[in-house]
Amino acid sequence: MTRGILFLVVTLVVSSATALWPQPQSISTGSKALKISPSFHITLSGIKNAPKDLLDAISKTKDNIANDKLERLVVGRGAVDAEAVAKSAELNELVVSLEHDGKVRSISEEAVDAIENRVEGYSLTVPEDGSAATLKANSTLGLYRGLTTFQQLWYFWDGRVYSVDAPFQIRDSPKYPYRGLMLDTSRNYFPAEDIKRTLDAMSLVKVRTICSSPVLPSVHVSVLFQLNSFHWHVVDSQSFPLQVPGFMELSEKGAYSPSSVYTPEVVKDIVAYAAARGIDVIAEIDTPGHTAVIAKAFPEHIACNEKTPWTTYANEPPAGQLRLASDATVKFTANLIEAASSLFQSKFFSTGGDEVKQSCYRDDEETQQQLNASGKTVETALNDFMKATHEALHKNGKTAVVWQEMVLEHKIELRNDTVIFVWISSTDVKAVAQAGFRLVHAASDYLYLDCGAGEWLGNDPTGNSWCDPFKTWQRSYIFDPTANLTESESKLVLGGQQLLWTEQSGPQNLDSIVWPRAASSAEVFWSGIGGNISQALPRLHEVGYRLNQRGVKAINLQPLWCALRPGVCDLTA
Amino acid sequence: MTRGILFLVVTLVVSSATALWPQPQSISTGSKALKISPSFHITLSGIKNAPKDLLDAISKTKDNIANDKLERLVVGRGAVDAEAVAKSAELNELVVSLEHDGKVRSISEEAVDAIENRVEGYSLTVPEDGSAATLKANSTLGLYRGLTTFQQLWYFWDGRVYSVDAPFQIRDSPKYPYRGLMLDTSRNYFPAEDIKRTLDAMSLVKVRTICSSPVLPSVHVSVLFQLNSFHWHVVDSQSFPLQVPGFMELSEKGAYSPSSVYTPEVVKDIVAYAAARGIDVIAEIDTPGHTAVIAKAFPEHIACNEKTPWTTYANEPPAGQLRLASDATVKFTANLIEAASSLFQSKFFSTGGDEVKQSCYRDDEETQQQLNASGKTVETALNDFMKATHEALHKNGKTAVVWQEMVLEHKIELRNDTVIFVWISSTDVKAVAQAGFRLVHAASDYLYLDCGAGEWLGNDPTGNSWCDPFKTWQRSYIFDPTANLTESESKLVLGGQQLLWTEQSGPQNLDSIVWPRAASSAEVFWSGIGGNISQALPRLHEVGYRLNQRGVKAINLQPLWCALRPGVCDLTA
Repeated sequence: MTRGILFLVVTLVVSSATALWPQPQSISTGSKALKISPSFHITLSGIKNAPKDLLDAISKTKDNIANDKLERLVVGRGAVDAEAVAKSAELNELVVSLEHDGKVRSISEEAVDAIENRVEGYSLTVPEDGSAATLKANSTLGLYRGLTTFQQLWYFWDGRVYSVDAPFQIRDSPKYPYRGLMLDTSRNYFPAEDIKRTLDAMSLVKVRTICSSPVLPSVHVSVLFQLNSFHWHVVDSQSFPLQVPGFMELSEKGAYSPSSVYTPEVVKDIVAYAAARGIDVIAEIDTPGHTAVIAKAFPEHIACNEKTPWTTYANEPPAGQLRLASDATVKFTANLIEAASSLFQSKFFSTGGDEVKQSCYRDDEETQQQLNASGKTVETALNDFMKATHEALHKNGKTAVVWQEMVLEHKIELRNDTVIFVWISSTDVKAVAQAGFRLVHAASDYLYLDCGAGEWLGNDPTGNSWCDPFKTWQRSYIFDPTANLTESESKLVLGGQQLLWTEQSGPQNLDSIVWPRAASSAEVFWSGIGGNISQALPRLHEVGYRLNQRGVKAINLQPLWCALRPGVCDLTA
Repeated sequence: MTRGILFLVVTLVVSSATALWPQPQSISTGSKALKISPSFHITLSGIKNAPKDLLDAISKTKDNIANDKLERLVVGRGAVDAEAVAKSAELNELVVSLEHDGKVRSISEEAVDAIENRVEGYSLTVPEDGSAATLKANSTLGLYRGLTTFQQLWYFWDGRVYSVDAPFQIRDSPKYPYRGLMLDTSRNYFPAEDIKRTLDAMSLVKVRTICSSPVLPSVHVSVLFQLNSFHWHVVDSQSFPLQVPGFMELSEKGAYSPSSVYTPEVVKDIVAYAAARGIDVIAEIDTPGHTAVIAKAFPEHIACNEKTPWTTYANEPPAGQLRLASDATVKFTANLIEAASSLFQSKFFSTGGDEVKQSCYRDDEETQQQLNASGKTVETALNDFMKATHEALHKNGKTAVVWQEMVLEHKIELRNDTVIFVWISSTDVKAVAQAGFRLVHAASDYLYLDCGAGEWLGNDPTGNSWCDPFKTWQRSYIFDPTANLTESESKLVLGGQQLLWTEQSGPQNLDSIVWPRAASSAEVFWSGIGGNISQALPRLHEVGYRLNQRGVKAINLQPLWCALRPGVCDLTA
C-alpha cells in the first residue's frame, strides 16, 4: 500500500477511540458502541486437531478480555462512554477459522520456520449488531496475530468491556518478516524470568506478574506489538552464562556466578515460551572478537587475553579474541558454534564478527607464528575461520547471521543466504544491499536503546556515551527502512530491530529502558514507515499504559494530563 | 578540612575493602579481619528515656547487620577473605552514648528542627581485637548517622558477617546542612509507597521490599547516603493530589483520580516516616505560575487557564497563573499556603515563584482591570502577592523557600531569612549569593535527573530535552558548591539537591532514574567537592548493589565484570 493510504488510515484511527499498535495495513471502524457479553466465547470452525498452543492462545485471549481493565485515555475516562455502552448490542462469539484445508501446524512450528515461509496475515471482522465476529488466516501464526489484535479492541469502565468504534474490518499483514529486539545478557546477567517478561511484552500476551503490592495491584491487560524475533546476544567477553553441552567449562568458569547461567533446560523453556508467542529466538556467539571470557576455561584459544592497555586491543575491556589462525582454535570454535546452535530451534544463528582488532593478532606471538607457518594474513585467516564456522552451521541446518563488518570491512566469502545485521550506521545499509545480502536494520544512530546515558567507562568525568544522544521513540519511529535503496535493494531488507547493550542495564531497568520505545520500530517494521509523531503518540501512550497494567514497567512519555488530551501537549499546539 | 586531606582519605579507602558513601570527613582503617559475633548487641550508655525512634534505629541496625548479605565486589567475592575471617576476633558489642547531659530529643524532633540548629556529626571506633566498638554524638540525629555508617562496614560470605579493614576510627560531620532530593508528584502521580521507598533509600535504613520472586529473593542490606531533605513538589498545573483541609475541592477536582491523592493522614505518615530517618520534608505549592489546575475548583482565581497556544502563556502546557492583582486571589492563596504548610512539620515551605509569564497577565482582562484599579504593575502586584503569602508562612512559624526568579528576575522584597533554590543554571548562584540570600544548589546543568531523554512535547520528531544532555553521576559528582564564590558568599550555601521533574517519569522508573545517581550529590554535600571519579566509582557500585539487595532498583553503572575490578574499565586503563 502507498504511504498516502497509510496516512489516511492513521487519521481515521486517531479520530476514533481504537488505538491499535502496530497500525494494521487496512482498518475501517465505525462509531457504534458494542460490549462483550458475559457469555462471550471463541469458537474454532473447521480446524481439526487444533494444536495446543492455538488453544492456549484462545484461552488467554478470553482471559485477557475478561481481566483487562484498561480505561480509555480520554478526559473522564470511560464515563463519557457509559450511556452509549448501556444501550449497545453485545458480542457473544468470535469464530476462528483457517483459510486452507492442509495440515494444521502449531504456532510454535510456524514461528521458527524459515523466515521466507512464514505467513502472519489475518483478517478480522467485528459487526456492530452483536452477530458473531470472525477471524481468518492462512496460518496459525496469522490467527495468533489476529487474536492479539482482537484483544486490543476493548476498554473497561464500571464492570463493562466495550468498544465505541464498532463495526471493525481489519485486513492485516506485516511489511517486513523480521521485527526484532536484541538483548545482551553478558555485560550484565538477566534471569530467565526477565527474558520471559520481555518475550511477553514483545508478543503482548498476558504477562506473569512478578511484583505485587497493595499499591500496584496486578491487573492483566493485553496489547499488541507482534515483534517476532528475539536476538539473544547471550555471551561476550565479560561473562559466558550459556551452558553448552560438551563445553561446560565455559560457563563454569565464565559465568558471573554459579547461578547466573542459562542451562539447556532453561534455554529450551525460553525457546518454547517464545515460539508459542510467535517469536523466533536467534542466538549469537560472537566470534572471533568479544571472546575474552573463553580464556578462563581454554586460555590456549585466546589472543591478547585481558591485555592492557585495553584501548589498544579491544573496543571495550577486557580484550581477547579467538586465535583465528590456529587450526585447533578453528575446530574448537566450529564445534562450539555447532553445539550452541543445536540448543535453539531457529534456522538463524549469529556468529557475530564485529570489532575484530588487528592489533590483538599483531602482538600475539602464537598467532604470528601460526600465520607465518601457514602463509596466511589475518584477513585470509579470518576468511577461513568464518567459512569453517559457517560450514558447521550449514551442516546443522542453520543459516548464518553476521554483523556488517564481515561484508564491508573484511570481504569474507559468505554464503549467499547469510543475513547481515547493520549496526554501525544506517548509512552503511546501502553498501550491504549493494553487496547483494539480505539485511536486518540495527543501526546505532536510530535503533540503539542504550545510548545517551553518559560514558560507562571510568575516569571520564564529562564523557558521553559513544552513540549519543538518547534515541527517542520519535527518532526510531521516523526511521525509513528503504531510504536510499533501489527497489531491488529494498527487497533485501528483512526488517529491523531495536537493541539493548547492557553496560548500564540490568534487570533493574530492563523494562524502563526498553518499553514503550521498542514498540516504535515494531510499528515501523510491521506497518511500514511510521509517519506522523503527533498522531502516533496517543496510540503509543496506550501501549505503555496497557503494559503497566500487566506489570511491565513501561515509562510515561508525557504527564498523564497530556496523555488524556491528544495533541494538546504538542510543541505547536 | 582541606581538599588535599580529603584526597588522601579517599585513596586510603579505595585501597581497603571498606566502601563508605558518602566519604566520612576523617577515617582511618586497618587491615585486620573482624567478624560480627552471633551474640552481637548494641548497648545504650547513659541515655535515659531513650526516644522510641532511636530504639527503633538500633533495632534496625542489628537486623540489617544480621540480614545484610552483600558480598564484597572483588573477583572471587568473599572467598578471598575466608581464611583471615575464620581466624579473626569477634565483635560482640557496640556502645552508643551521647556526649551531652541535657534533654534527649528524638531523631524525629531533631530532623525537622531549624536547619542551623541541627547537629549530625558523630565519632565511631571499632577496635580490631573484639573489644567493644563505640559510637558517640552530640545528638540523636548524629547517633542515627553513625548507626547507618556502622551498618555499612560489613560484608557477607558463607554465613559470616565481617570486615577485613579493622580497626576503624571515624570522625564525621556534614559539610553542608542541606542535602536533598526533589520529587515532582504532579506531572505524574506516585503512590505513598514509592515516596517511602525513596525516603528509605535517602536515609538508607532497611527498605520494605514490595517485589519478590524466586528469581530475585529479598535480601536486606544497608547503605548510607544521609540525605536529609526531601523537597516535595507536590502539586503543579497538571494535577493537584494534595488534600488541603479547607480546600478539598482542589484535589477533588484536580487530582488525576479519586485515589491519586495524598490525604492529610498519608502526609502525616510520610512526614513521620521521613523524620524518623533523619529527613525533613519541605513541601512546595508553586505560585503564582504552575497553577492551572486550581481553575478546576476555583476558576475565578486563574488567569489564562488552558489558554492556547500554550507556548505564549506558559513554559509547558497547560497555561494558567493565579490572578496576582486580585485581592480575593491573594487572600485565597495566603490561606491555602497557610493551610498546606500546616500539614508539614518542616520549618521550610516553598511558595515556588518560577516561570511567571507576563503574557498571561497581559491578555487577562480581569487582571488588567485589577491592575488599573489599584495602580499596580505586574511586578508591584507580584511583590505584594509574595509578601502576603510569605507573611502567612511567617505567622505560621515557617521560613519561605522560593525559586531563583524571585530574586534575580523580579526583585521581590523577600524576608532576609528566605532560602533561594537556584535551578536555571549554576552560573546564577553568584548573583543570588551577592544578593545576600541563603541558597540551595539545584542547577539544571548539573543536578537535574530528568534531562537527556528527548523532547516530551509531541510533534517534535528530532527534539531533545530542554536541559540536554543526560546528567551523569560523574557530572553531578564534580559539581563544586562554592565555585566562583567569595568566602562570605560561600557561607550562604546551605547545600544542594538533585531533582526529578516527572514529565517522563512515574513509579515505573523512579528507582532507575534516581539511583544510584542521586548518591552523587549526597557525597558532594556531605563530604565536600567530590574529586576523583575513578576512585569514587567502586564505592558507588557498592551503593547500587546494596540498594538492589533491598529491592531498590538502582541501575548498573558498568558491567559486573568492571565492578569486580576497580579501575580496570577506566578509559585510560
